[in-house]
Amino acid sequence: MVGVSDRKQFRDLRPPAEAREAISSLDLTPDPETVPLDEARGRVLAERIDAELDVPGFDRASVDGYAVRARDTFGADEADPVVLDQVGTVHAGTEPDVFVDEGTCAEISTGAVMPDGADAVVMVERTDEQDDGIAIRTAVAPGDRVMVAGADVAAGSRALGPGTLLTPREIGLLSALGVDAVPVRGKPTVGIVSTGDELVRPGDDLNSAAGQIYDVNSYTIAAGVEEAGGEAVLYPHAGDDYDEMERLLVEAADECDLVLSSGSTSASAVDVIYRVIEDEGELLLHGVSVKPGKPMLIGRLGEARSASRSAYVGLPGYPVSALTIFRTFVAPAIRSAAGLPEPRTATVEGRMAVQERYSEGRTRLMPVGLVEDGAGDTLVYPVDKGSGATTSLVEADGVVEVDADTEYLAADETVTVQLFSPDVRAPALLGVGEDDPALSRLLDAVEHPRYLDVGSREGRRRLRDGVPDVAVVSGPSDRDVEAVELGGWTREWGLVVPAGNPEGIEGLADLVDRDLRFVNRARDSGLRASLDAAVGELADERGADSRDLTDAIDGYDLTVKGFESPARKVLSGGAAAGLGLRTTAETLDCGFVPLGVESVRVLANPDRTDKPGVEALRAVLDAELDAVAASLPGVDG
Amino acid sequence: MVGVSDRKQFRDLRPPAEAREAISSLDLTPDPETVPLDEARGRVLAERIDAELDVPGFDRASVDGYAVRARDTFGADEADPVVLDQVGTVHAGTEPDVFVDEGTCAEISTGAVMPDGADAVVMVERTDEQDDGIAIRTAVAPGDRVMVAGADVAAGSRALGPGTLLTPREIGLLSALGVDAVPVRGKPTVGIVSTGDELVRPGDDLNSAAGQIYDVNSYTIAAGVEEAGGEAVLYPHAGDDYDEMERLLVEAADECDLVLSSGSTSASAVDVIYRVIEDEGELLLHGVSVKPGKPMLIGRLGEARSASRSAYVGLPGYPVSALTIFRTFVAPAIRSAAGLPEPRTATVEGRMAVQERYSEGRTRLMPVGLVEDGAGDTLVYPVDKGSGATTSLVEADGVVEVDADTEYLAADETVTVQLFSPDVRAPALLGVGEDDPALSRLLDAVEHPRYLDVGSREGRRRLRDGVPDVAVVSGPSDRDVEAVELGGWTREWGLVVPAGNPEGIEGLADLVDRDLRFVNRARDSGLRASLDAAVGELADERGADSRDLTDAIDGYDLTVKGFESPARKVLSGGAAAGLGLRTTAETLDCGFVPLGVESVRVLANPDRTDKPGVEALRAVLDAELDAVAASLPGVDG
Repeated sequence: MVGVSDRKQFRDLRPPAEAREAISSLDLTPDPETVPLDEARGRVLAERIDAELDVPGFDRASVDGYAVRARDTFGADEADPVVLDQVGTVHAGTEPDVFVDEGTCAEISTGAVMPDGADAVVMVERTDEQDDGIAIRTAVAPGDRVMVAGADVAAGSRALGPGTLLTPREIGLLSALGVDAVPVRGKPTVGIVSTGDELVRPGDDLNSAAGQIYDVNSYTIAAGVEEAGGEAVLYPHAGDDYDEMERLLVEAADECDLVLSSGSTSASAVDVIYRVIEDEGELLLHGVSVKPGKPMLIGRLGEARSASRSAYVGLPGYPVSALTIFRTFVAPAIRSAAGLPEPRTATVEGRMAVQERYSEGRTRLMPVGLVEDGAGDTLVYPVDKGSGATTSLVEADGVVEVDADTEYLAADETVTVQLFSPDVRAPALLGVGEDDPALSRLLDAVEHPRYLDVGSREGRRRLRDGVPDVAVVSGPSDRDVEAVELGGWTREWGLVVPAGNPEGIEGLADLVDRDLRFVNRARDSGLRASLDAAVGELADERGADSRDLTDAIDGYDLTVKGFESPARKVLSGGAAAGLGLRTTAETLDCGFVPLGVESVRVLANPDRTDKPGVEALRAVLDAELDAVAASLPGVDG
Repeated sequence: MVGVSDRKQFRDLRPPAEAREAISSLDLTPDPETVPLDEARGRVLAERIDAELDVPGFDRASVDGYAVRARDTFGADEADPVVLDQVGTVHAGTEPDVFVDEGTCAEISTGAVMPDGADAVVMVERTDEQDDGIAIRTAVAPGDRVMVAGADVAAGSRALGPGTLLTPREIGLLSALGVDAVPVRGKPTVGIVSTGDELVRPGDDLNSAAGQIYDVNSYTIAAGVEEAGGEAVLYPHAGDDYDEMERLLVEAADECDLVLSSGSTSASAVDVIYRVIEDEGELLLHGVSVKPGKPMLIGRLGEARSASRSAYVGLPGYPVSALTIFRTFVAPAIRSAAGLPEPRTATVEGRMAVQERYSEGRTRLMPVGLVEDGAGDTLVYPVDKGSGATTSLVEADGVVEVDADTEYLAADETVTVQLFSPDVRAPALLGVGEDDPALSRLLDAVEHPRYLDVGSREGRRRLRDGVPDVAVVSGPSDRDVEAVELGGWTREWGLVVPAGNPEGIEGLADLVDRDLRFVNRARDSGLRASLDAAVGELADERGADSRDLTDAIDGYDLTVKGFESPARKVLSGGAAAGLGLRTTAETLDCGFVPLGVESVRVLANPDRTDKPGVEALRAVLDAELDAVAASLPGVDG
């Protein structure tokens, strides 16, 4: 580890435009390759394909009917048919073995070769089989119902140009031309080197006590590389050690068109990479005046040791930052190297749902979420948990680029959102508020919802601001919010304790009066509001101040995030009791000391009650209510 | 082959809505499966994923700096720092081996585990190393710069719901949760049975004399199936024989969720399939009142013999019709079974570029092309070559559904186009007119062009109608068109003859006066117009009528499509001379009898000269002209 005082400072930050220029100066275009036709979909033609044969390759009957000499039919009509001798039959896919002479015809199927002598086809619907031959009830001209050889595609003609994206219809044309091996642009190979001693691959065991975390960026960026038309190669993760990092980066540079490093948030790891790139390649740019992404590195790698040279970009460590910088600077370069156009769905326009201030003098890539208002217009709201939260990954839909000199985005101002993926859509339902196990299940029945478990208090606040479609709230509150109640349910809350309740806890008073370690929920939680109300009642009973009671509870200020979190803390031996729900205690096989019952209510934004996602949630709530009612004994039961 | 008179008639056509209902009544949803995380992109979650662990799994430093007891920093500021003893260092990914007691601190890196005793981190920028310890130049509160365990994702909370499409960001969240095997919805397996004795797989040799053609539908539809989220299985192609068709269809039904038959345009083959479905399954619908698509079959297969039952849809035989019916009726069912949403780019709105009449009393699925006008608005024009042309596949971008009772679409009327693929975009340049080898090469330098080689005469007509961006014309014309000339070149034309000119042909007179088989180009071709002008001159010289001369040319009415086609006819021994270009004769090693030089001119729609695609073509033409000029000797050279 490099000492704190030696750490690299990013003093000479370059503007984002220079970062884009530096990346486009790198060459990541791979050689073209040839792929089988059935693997060519989604690839891009490397060269022009001219037709090497006529399509069709022969004069071809366009309908089922009779091949004739047109001249023999002149004058024929419904009332006065011409009768021709049938001299044979021509099936599709066989060589004709008949000659159509004057006064004769041959039965022919669609797609069959025109027999010699014949120059037109009469469709079967205008004929009759008679004892003396085939009655032809219409006159035809030479060439009628015949597609001549090359009429569809003429040999030598231009079929598809270089750069054509191969969708099903182009695959169809290539099939018609008999092409089974297609010259396509290569997919840029992108090596991903994750750095950081603390990273563990998903699926492996995690030692949290040693500060291990799962590697998020490698998989996120690998998926992004493939979405942009590249081929991702994951390298084993490197620690912060110079020699190991050098070995891995040089290996990746040997094998790939582009190397991305990503993963570590530690300044010391960034420093090590910086030195490796300087020693083993060329650093074009170091630090960009953009938030996030300041420590971005751009350069070339592998020059010093081998003939093959690779482009290099160092991504920031926080997952949302890494994806943002990848989306903004790197994915376009991969697409361009692959010859793929930017998808039309890569950006959307929307209006700011709230105002947003900013003044750091750097370009800001602001992560945002999308929600549709009642009229179906797209609203855009900032999502910024900071601190490298991975949940921001799925709470943000894309990024708004805000100029360095823009200090203020007004509510209703139109902004352009660069989506994290062309497949990203605004959720059908945006909910915020209390977390609850029943709610988790209910949401499963709604298509494409997004739910942010910010707690009841924050949920009410956001609903008041008009951003979400619904807020789910529980517990007492002294602030009202204008809303339409869609439904709700009740839940029994209390203290989750170890199985069998070894401490013999009977109620809140035990926490106040005895030396028992407690785990609380945060202030925004409705459950916490219910607890605080119960503490208030106990204080009233005792003629004491609530504050004195809470001071007496060991761990009252120790709060954790999820509805199961206190129970899990109890299970792990970290506490004697935790605030929680009976259902949680049952799920996790804990003991439970009931303290009360609270309502959970689903409140809808009054402007959004007709929104399909809100209606879907209402329907699910109604169905749930009906199911509960049906399971209760009747009044006379 | 079934006799003509026995053929099935589709008398009881059902409306398209019933076809949609019938298809949605079929069950093609496969069982869910589990895939590795690195193959999960683009798949759809089969079930809810709740977090099984806290993220982070420990109290984590959010910055590089010093872990402290917050209380020790109270009162510290820039001017009056607190100095603490450094008792150790905690790296990311290691278990802390220090205890932070009162008056002490530990160096800590971003992402490292908070050591016992410490409750906050001071960022390195607010500290200094001094001889007597670490100077802390700011006060912090408990919890500052610390992300507590579970603050990002709490164990037990709802992470991702069922039905979630997995894009890079969801892959990121799954990584963070340590999930390396993801339960996803299965991809519906779609078997494709192509029928028709005449079909040959691309890459195999084609016997055109026996009426063989390459199988277009199997590959087109297979690509369409995969684009819609299914897994395509190509079965060996079946002839029109009942036993073989039955064996293949039953095998496919055993192995697949859906079986599509496609390929044959012959009514007899359709009849055989009809009987197989009736014998081996259940026919739900036979014949739909839609053009194209009348002979569509919908049913179930495999009931009679095995427990497994498959859905069945029979597609029409012509490639554009097959893709149209697939796109309209089948792809949505595959998407729905795969749990994938209809892509936002699947439809576009546009204005009809021309009027279109229709009155067949059936719903029409009209293949259309797209072009952007000068203002960037999307214009829609019908593309209907009929006769099963495969070129229509790449000339049409999608389909407009026209109600059975709509007889007339006015120019400028707004229509909705269902694109053949979400990746389809309007071409950057739409050109029409003469075909020419130099033009083929020039177009390679323009991104995403579309060129329809309809000939000079038809090109002028379409430019007058205002649909294309440019028309490329050659040869004399008696009709003017208002246009901006972008540039052009000349080409030498004449008679392509066998190498060495064995017949000693010297000019047009030989064709008139001798018994020589000739191959002409169609009337729309500029080359043909030049030929006709030359015939006119010869007639004038002789004081004869042009008509008498052309009547004397054997094969004057025998026309073929492409600029190389007459030469190829000559090469194959089918003619003694063909109308063509010197460059073609040279390319194909033929002899050449020059008859004249004609200009090829590129004419732009006056409203579209600023369109980027048109500007790109102009730039290419200018560059070409400069290159030609540079290669010519100077006046003094």
